[in-house]
Amino acid sequence: MQTIEFKRRPKIIGSYSIVGPKEGQGPFGSFFDYVMKNDLFGEKTYELAERKMFEQAVMGALQSAGLQPNDVDLMLAGDLLNQIISSSFTARAFNMPYLGLFGACSTMAESLATGATLVDSGHFGNVICLTGSHFSTAERQFRFPLELGNQRVPTSQWTATAAGATILSLEGKGPQVVMATFGRVIDYGVVDVNNMGAAMAPSAADTLLTHFKDTGRKPSYYDLIVTGDLGKLGAEILLDLLEDKGIKLGLNYSDCGHCYYTRGQDTMCGGSGCGVSASVLNSYIIKKMKKGEYKKVLFVPTGALMSTTASQQGESIPGVSHAIVLEMGGV
Amino acid sequence: MQTIEFKRRPKIIGSYSIVGPKEGQGPFGSFFDYVMKNDLFGEKTYELAERKMFEQAVMGALQSAGLQPNDVDLMLAGDLLNQIISSSFTARAFNMPYLGLFGACSTMAESLATGATLVDSGHFGNVICLTGSHFSTAERQFRFPLELGNQRVPTSQWTATAAGATILSLEGKGPQVVMATFGRVIDYGVVDVNNMGAAMAPSAADTLLTHFKDTGRKPSYYDLIVTGDLGKLGAEILLDLLEDKGIKLGLNYSDCGHCYYTRGQDTMCGGSGCGVSASVLNSYIIKKMKKGEYKKVLFVPTGALMSTTASQQGESIPGVSHAIVLEMGGV
Repeated sequence: MQTIEFKRRPKIIGSYSIVGPKEGQGPFGSFFDYVMKNDLFGEKTYELAERKMFEQAVMGALQSAGLQPNDVDLMLAGDLLNQIISSSFTARAFNMPYLGLFGACSTMAESLATGATLVDSGHFGNVICLTGSHFSTAERQFRFPLELGNQRVPTSQWTATAAGATILSLEGKGPQVVMATFGRVIDYGVVDVNNMGAAMAPSAADTLLTHFKDTGRKPSYYDLIVTGDLGKLGAEILLDLLEDKGIKLGLNYSDCGHCYYTRGQDTMCGGSGCGVSASVLNSYIIKKMKKGEYKKVLFVPTGALMSTTASQQGESIPGVSHAIVLEMGGV
Repeated sequence: MQTIEFKRRPKIIGSYSIVGPKEGQGPFGSFFDYVMKNDLFGEKTYELAERKMFEQAVMGALQSAGLQPNDVDLMLAGDLLNQIISSSFTARAFNMPYLGLFGACSTMAESLATGATLVDSGHFGNVICLTGSHFSTAERQFRFPLELGNQRVPTSQWTATAAGATILSLEGKGPQVVMATFGRVIDYGVVDVNNMGAAMAPSAADTLLTHFKDTGRKPSYYDLIVTGDLGKLGAEILLDLLEDKGIKLGLNYSDCGHCYYTRGQDTMCGGSGCGVSASVLNSYIIKKMKKGEYKKVLFVPTGALMSTTASQQGESIPGVSHAIVLEMGGV
């Protein structure tokens, strides 16, 4: 059984989202807590800008929960940079006990699944879950020098400049983390690093099928089933893979990456990066849940476990996805 | 409080260690489960060799516990390679639910601390904790091309070719995971990437001081207090830092990295890499505990959260260390 149910239902008592200017012009723009004026965010390097976004996300989430940094028992964080420096250096800044994670763009789910288990165990009070990405750091690490002005293929996605932080606790009010389905690593042999959606869709399908099997629920149970950053093509592949297994997602299905930019923003298949699902969860989804517009949400961030070394050595790209059940209880 | 006590005391029911030929000639040689004949391990690349070591560690740990891959509920794994490909690709091979971790050389402790909390929660049956490192993949990723025959400075350490896997469960027999102290990220401003011991020692000191404060225990409570891979210089710095705070470690203190190679093996300050503490735990320490030679062990792997990008941008190197209390109960 890959799905566990949290007995005490940890609550999301704080959240914060911060994005770059391009992301602020997208459909979720008015929901984000902070939109940066430019991608450097007053720093000398894009890596420092990414870290500053992470730090602001932590501060913002703390403020929204009415907490101080030393009220936090544990930080669970990860990012796309080699050796997850944005996360580690943020943990250094706040002096919090720290577990570094790597689940690529599934990290928001990995941190929530792990964090909720730790909080539910009763050993931890307030746990902060954190992740994000930056277009300029990811692009030059994984693909091409920014100066190259490289042409983009139709299957490509745009790595979002965005970060999100969530604070979990047994005390306080907010959407509840009710269940988590821990995903397996799935690989259908996609080798194209410009087609992340196709690489990740099989893992999203596997995790969703497992979730429905483990819980006996149907897709219609949820107001919203939302994957992370499959993008336009990946989301279509997911629907096909599920339909092959007799599962039809309905109008309650969407993908954060697919909807992250407008058509005119020229991002081909949409947004990608840890920041996409993290910023949508910590703005749009949580705000809509608090307003009662969503009561039951299945949040399924998706990660592509690629590295440049692996790709250069001819490896295919495995995916991993975890599913988090969020419900607005009688709060 | 950074230290938690596990109510149900998860047990180490399976373990396995695998090392390279150089490591097999070191002081722990006769304790390791498998010594490779050469560093390529029959593969085309060192990255594939590292992955094969991880896979063999999983198979070996499963066998030692009398389990099959599908008996495992979750794999917690991490490594030093960018985007932890050794771990992710191993999870792909075994089709297990997977949480990727990054704690650099503290990963064996990070996986045990997290894994024990998950097992203790009652949600997970058998959890496998896995990490390792490979001299040739790490050297060319973090430092210099192997062909360069680069000269080594006196403070340098030798990244071990080694991996270890541990299976935790509430059922079965073996050393118990009794407590964990979750460490903070500590940075004293060391910028020298050839002096990992100095970069990590302050975090080891912080975690040990926190552990003794949280538990009210003195160092003499333990038969063995063993840090991960501080090496000769880092271990000396740790002793100094603790003595400044009025804590004296005695003859029961040692460091896996410091003791990992013989003096004649020319590794300067000793071994480093996730594989050091992972292979020593899953051979020497667990075997000695099962024989009753150690009853109470404080296992404190240490990690340097460096990346080449961060170092090239002038950043200092933060460290993180987690402490695990292992006890041989009335088994």
